[in-house]
Amino acid sequence: MSSIDINCDLGESFGQFIMGNDDAIFPYISSCNIACGFHGGDPLHIENTIKKALQHNVQIGAHPSYPDLAGFGRRKIVLSHEELKASVKYQISALIGMVKSLGGELKYIKAHGALYNSIAFGEKEANTFLSAVKEIDPDLAILGLAGSPFQEITQQCGFRFIREGFLDRRYQDDGSLMPRKEKGSVLESVEESINQFISIAQKGEVQTASGKRITMEVDSLCIHGDNPLAEDILKATHQLDQPITVKCIQL
Amino acid sequence: MSSIDINCDLGESFGQFIMGNDDAIFPYISSCNIACGFHGGDPLHIENTIKKALQHNVQIGAHPSYPDLAGFGRRKIVLSHEELKASVKYQISALIGMVKSLGGELKYIKAHGALYNSIAFGEKEANTFLSAVKEIDPDLAILGLAGSPFQEITQQCGFRFIREGFLDRRYQDDGSLMPRKEKGSVLESVEESINQFISIAQKGEVQTASGKRITMEVDSLCIHGDNPLAEDILKATHQLDQPITVKCIQL
Amino acid sequence: MSSIDINCDLGESFGQFIMGNDDAIFPYISSCNIACGFHGGDPLHIENTIKKALQHNVQIGAHPSYPDLAGFGRRKIVLSHEELKASVKYQISALIGMVKSLGGELKYIKAHGALYNSIAFGEKEANTFLSAVKEIDPDLAILGLAGSPFQEITQQCGFRFIREGFLDRRYQDDGSLMPRKEKGSVLESVEESINQFISIAQKGEVQTASGKRITMEVDSLCIHGDNPLAEDILKATHQLDQPITVKCIQL
Amino acid sequence: MSSIDINCDLGESFGQFIMGNDDAIFPYISSCNIACGFHGGDPLHIENTIKKALQHNVQIGAHPSYPDLAGFGRRKIVLSHEELKASVKYQISALIGMVKSLGGELKYIKAHGALYNSIAFGEKEANTFLSAVKEIDPDLAILGLAGSPFQEITQQCGFRFIREGFLDRRYQDDGSLMPRKEKGSVLESVEESINQFISIAQKGEVQTASGKRITMEVDSLCIHGDNPLAEDILKATHQLDQPITVKCIQL
Repeated sequence: MSSIDINCDLGESFGQFIMGNDDAIFPYISSCNIACGFHGGDPLHIENTIKKALQHNVQIGAHPSYPDLAGFGRRKIVLSHEELKASVKYQISALIGMVKSLGGELKYIKAHGALYNSIAFGEKEANTFLSAVKEIDPDLAILGLAGSPFQEITQQCGFRFIREGFLDRRYQDDGSLMPRKEKGSVLESVEESINQFISIAQKGEVQTASGKRITMEVDSLCIHGDNPLAEDILKATHQLDQPITVKCIQL
Repeated sequence: MSSIDINCDLGESFGQFIMGNDDAIFPYISSCNIACGFHGGDPLHIENTIKKALQHNVQIGAHPSYPDLAGFGRRKIVLSHEELKASVKYQISALIGMVKSLGGELKYIKAHGALYNSIAFGEKEANTFLSAVKEIDPDLAILGLAGSPFQEITQQCGFRFIREGFLDRRYQDDGSLMPRKEKGSVLESVEESINQFISIAQKGEVQTASGKRITMEVDSLCIHGDNPLAEDILKATHQLDQPITVKCIQL
Repeated sequence: MSSIDINCDLGESFGQFIMGNDDAIFPYISSCNIACGFHGGDPLHIENTIKKALQHNVQIGAHPSYPDLAGFGRRKIVLSHEELKASVKYQISALIGMVKSLGGELKYIKAHGALYNSIAFGEKEANTFLSAVKEIDPDLAILGLAGSPFQEITQQCGFRFIREGFLDRRYQDDGSLMPRKEKGSVLESVEESINQFISIAQKGEVQTASGKRITMEVDSLCIHGDNPLAEDILKATHQLDQPITVKCIQL
Repeated sequence: MSSIDINCDLGESFGQFIMGNDDAIFPYISSCNIACGFHGGDPLHIENTIKKALQHNVQIGAHPSYPDLAGFGRRKIVLSHEELKASVKYQISALIGMVKSLGGELKYIKAHGALYNSIAFGEKEANTFLSAVKEIDPDLAILGLAGSPFQEITQQCGFRFIREGFLDRRYQDDGSLMPRKEKGSVLESVEESINQFISIAQKGEVQTASGKRITMEVDSLCIHGDNPLAEDILKATHQLDQPITVKCIQL
């Protein structure tokens, strides 16, 4: 029987501003990337999200971002090497301490939004990001875009790399994601997402926007909490004729 | 020969907004309370301040605050027990991780501004604050107002308490500080501060606003970095006829 | 036939953080209080909300707040007279200019959250608030709690006062609102809100928590956009057997 | 006798974070660009800066910025056309209202930091910026980089353009400023700045980094408030053997 990790960005609410529907998603995922307060997530939402992750036995990663609450971390902020490094160190440290205080252990780091993309394709940003993680804890795993330049850099730096694919996003022939701004970049139906889930989890393949089938070997599949179909897709992943076990990577 | 700890709030600059003159103060103090990003201090200023503290062999404490950059943490923000607790845990965790990553160790916690006062005299806030520290690391020492209700609560909770006095603030007959808003609340001359320094460090006494001498037994004396006389006062503490050693508490 | 104004706080979303369901509410109300960026509302959400208000022919008020995005303006921030005054002037000015630029006119001011309560019962805060409005435009109307000390102060200052009641909140025998923290403070059913609507609009009376009927003469009824029943309540107000016209105050 | 306008960015302090030394600069300048709260400046500092400008009879402009307090507006933030437009409208409106409330009149707009550069050389950003100003008040003048593409776009849009040069920055042969990151980008001595002042004000020329003399026709010269020599330079401009009158553009 196949198995795969499903991860989701959670804990992104800020004060009275509620983002996503974390409670509906927790039962179906095996890993969660918890916001660190820079694009969303305030201390109390972070604390409560950690507690829920521990209750649901969901593996915990930190989800650092550019400092950009107003843009939800989706805008690239040009930081110096020193600024970015300190910023990532601060966020990871905050999460490590809070997770530990509640009896858990922070296992991996996944960058958020624009920072995710900056490091996926920017060698300089990637190295800055990794130097930050290394100074905090070189045993942390790094979750990032499967097949990206970042994967290679991370592995060369000696980190365990968790290759990530996407349950609800459409791929292009070169293995990259269709940009969010383009129509069709997010899969429109539960069925499409489930087909992508099965195809990636069982065959290591994905069907691209052009209809081509390409190799897509991943360790973890991301579903976006702000996808209105997220809950239905996740439920469906647990009700397949040929079950695929959702479980986290052993770290 | 007498000896005493001198602590100062440092690392409070935010981006291009420079607060205080940390470089001038580091050579003369034995402990520094580093801002955690909530009233001042951004990740890079925090990182750089930690590096300087390590270079100057100055003991490092975390200086958590109400989340209030606009008010520099000097305004009381009414937070729920859960909010305050999570907020303190987040800030301390961020500092612990960053200090550790640079080869140091965070030794104590001193609350900032309005939070300092809230916990000094508010039993509920004090307990919330201490429960946060306890969940993160019960071996951390707590620096707070000497003789305040907080001192007793902290010690009952099993924490090491560092009794704090003030080098540059005027005391009232009941041992409390003259409120900042009142004229004369900050000592006007280097000489007055030095007299207070000698009196507290050598005799455990302080002369109050009314001229009375009262007992003031403290482990650490605070000087405010934004006091324009700070550098001169600190230099003078190192040039006394009868030297008083400035050294940090062994923690 | 009776008529009454219904107002709602709108435009409170911040970046990707969506607050309330403004589009569903606009068709049923006659006045909207638009966030000014201090507790919610960023420039683009403000701009878009003004456009929608103009499209729906809904009267526009500014909804200034304490500067408190993290607390959604529901926490009292202790500001000096000068700070509060400047803060209110800034927010109102921003709204006036943006409304005017889109061909509309800002007609009234309603304070938000903790500021609403501060000025309703605090004479000092009320005077500061009114002095700010007066310096910007003394012809603006002020919407505030019916029967509060603020009503009298406002009228003495020469402002037009719009007396506000609440569609979905439970009253106490002295005419004050049951505090939000208490169970039952928000009416639980559409039916209860509609009964309160009819009772206030037609008879100038409201039934309190104890069952007593008290006088409640108001010019405008507020419904909270974050009330999950808001849309259903508003629809029901338009489908009464004995219609009550929803229309804004002529200002 | 020659005359020229000298402008300075003022009112950029935020809460307890003091930026620049406005009081020392006001007596020597003829125009001030007042921060609008997005890169610096909070309502009270804005209000007080307006009052001082009126006392010193200094012409008032608004100084809108990208929303970036942490980066002091010196980092480019990628905003959509709609976001940038609304953001500029909001900031200008806030200033217009506050200036008017104190008996003054806002006369011109100068973008700050990264936004200044974005619009100086980016046609798209320039048009967005100008469309924002146009919707608020098409009679406002625009102060921007002399000889930049922005100058032409602004004039084509029908705005009065105030050509700006720099008192304390070094120019390159093509008339652009030496980038801040490069050594020598800021003139090192009072004498150099004064020479540049005289050369631009009297001859419409400037000597570049390479020693070449190029034409530099400007209406206003900017001095940076955070230049430690600012006060000395400004004093010196008032003590020339052949006096140059410092006076604002008639708008």
